[in-house]
Amino acid sequence: MDHNKIPQATAKRLPLYYRFINNLNHQGKKRVSSKELSDAVKVDSATIRRDFSYFGALGKKGYGYNVEYLLGFFRKTLDQDETTDVALIGVGNLGTAFLHYNFMKNNNILIKMAFDSDPEKVGTTIGDVPVYHIADLEKKLDGVNVAILTIPASEADGITDRLVAEGITGILNFTPARITVPEYIRVHHIDLAVELQALVYFLKHYPLEETKQLD
Amino acid sequence: MDHNKIPQATAKRLPLYYRFINNLNHQGKKRVSSKELSDAVKVDSATIRRDFSYFGALGKKGYGYNVEYLLGFFRKTLDQDETTDVALIGVGNLGTAFLHYNFMKNNNILIKMAFDSDPEKVGTTIGDVPVYHIADLEKKLDGVNVAILTIPASEADGITDRLVAEGITGILNFTPARITVPEYIRVHHIDLAVELQALVYFLKHYPLEETKQLD
Repeated sequence: MDHNKIPQATAKRLPLYYRFINNLNHQGKKRVSSKELSDAVKVDSATIRRDFSYFGALGKKGYGYNVEYLLGFFRKTLDQDETTDVALIGVGNLGTAFLHYNFMKNNNILIKMAFDSDPEKVGTTIGDVPVYHIADLEKKLDGVNVAILTIPASEADGITDRLVAEGITGILNFTPARITVPEYIRVHHIDLAVELQALVYFLKHYPLEETKQLD
Repeated sequence: MDHNKIPQATAKRLPLYYRFINNLNHQGKKRVSSKELSDAVKVDSATIRRDFSYFGALGKKGYGYNVEYLLGFFRKTLDQDETTDVALIGVGNLGTAFLHYNFMKNNNILIKMAFDSDPEKVGTTIGDVPVYHIADLEKKLDGVNVAILTIPASEADGITDRLVAEGITGILNFTPARITVPEYIRVHHIDLAVELQALVYFLKHYPLEETKQLD
C-alpha cells in the first residue's frame, strides 16, 4: 500500500471509517451504502465516495460497498509491521483503565512503561506494564516517542515540557488542560466532558425520531 | 437562540468547534482564521465559513474570527438551562475516573447515580455520586435517560437491553462492544484503542514537519 497516493484529508478520515466498518462487520453486515456511512461518520456522501475511490473501493449503485473488502483495506493500511512503543504518564483511574486494555490484540501499539509519583504504584506492574517514578522519566523513556497524558491538569504543562525535551513527537492528551507544544509535535485531545456534552446536545435538539422524518 | 435555524450538519460540528475555540481562549488567543480552524478540526474552510455565517459570525479578511464572540455563542448554544441527569454503568477504573470529573463546572450535566455489582462499591458514594447495585437498575433509574457504559464488553448487550427497556434515549459507549439498539436511540462510541491508533497512524505517515512543507 503506497500511503502517498492517499490525500492527507482522506487519511484523516480513515480511523473514523475504520471504526464504523469494524462495527458493521461485528454485526454481521455484508454491505454498506455511502448514505449509511455518511450518517454514521458525519462526512457527506460525495466525500466518502471520493475517499473510497482512492482505496480502489468502487461502490455499486443499489448495492453499496463490500464491508469485508473495506475492512481488509483498513486493517492493511492502519496496522503496521513495526510496533510503536507508548509511555503512559499518570496511573490514576483513567491511566489504570488504559493499562488493562490489551492494545496488542488488534494493532501494533504497546504501552511499554508507565510513570507515577505514588510510592504504592511505583515499582509495580499493572497489566504487564512496569510503573516507574515520574522523577525517572528522562532515565527510562529511552526511545519511546508517543505518550498518553492521564495526569491532573495542574501537572500537564510541566510534564509536557519534559516529554518534549526528551523527543516525544505525539501526545494523546486526556487532561482538561490545553498544553502548549512546538508545532512539530502532534497532540490529540480527548475531553470526556465534551464527549458527554455532545451526546446530550444531540439528544435535546435532534431526537432521532424527528431526524428520520426530516431526512 | 433558535436552534432550528442551524442545519443539523452544522450542529454536528458545534462540539468540535467549541472544543478548539475553548482551547484558543485558554491560550489567550484573540482571533482565529478559518484556515487554522480547518487544520485543527479537519473540516474544510469553505464549510467552516458557511457554518459560522449561521451563527452570525462573519470573519474579516486578514483578521479571521473573534475568539471571544465565538466562545460566547457556543456557550449559549451548548449550555442549556435544564440539567440533564446521567447514569453511569460500571464503576471500574474508567467509570471511577468519570465520577471524579466535575461535569457541573462547565455545563448542565449531572451524573446522578452509578451502578456496579461489586459489594465493596455498592452503597458507597464516589465523587458525591451514589453507587447502586446493578440488580436495582430498573428500580433506581427513574427518569434518567442518558447512560455512560463503562462495563466489560461481555456485559454490554445485556445491560443495553435493560437500559432500552427503561426508556434510555442516549448511550455514551466506552466498551469495545458494538451494541445493538433500536434506531431511535442515539449511541456515541469512544474507543480508546482507536484514538491511540489514529494518533500513531498520523505520526507515522504525516509527520508534522513534512505536512508543513506540503501545505
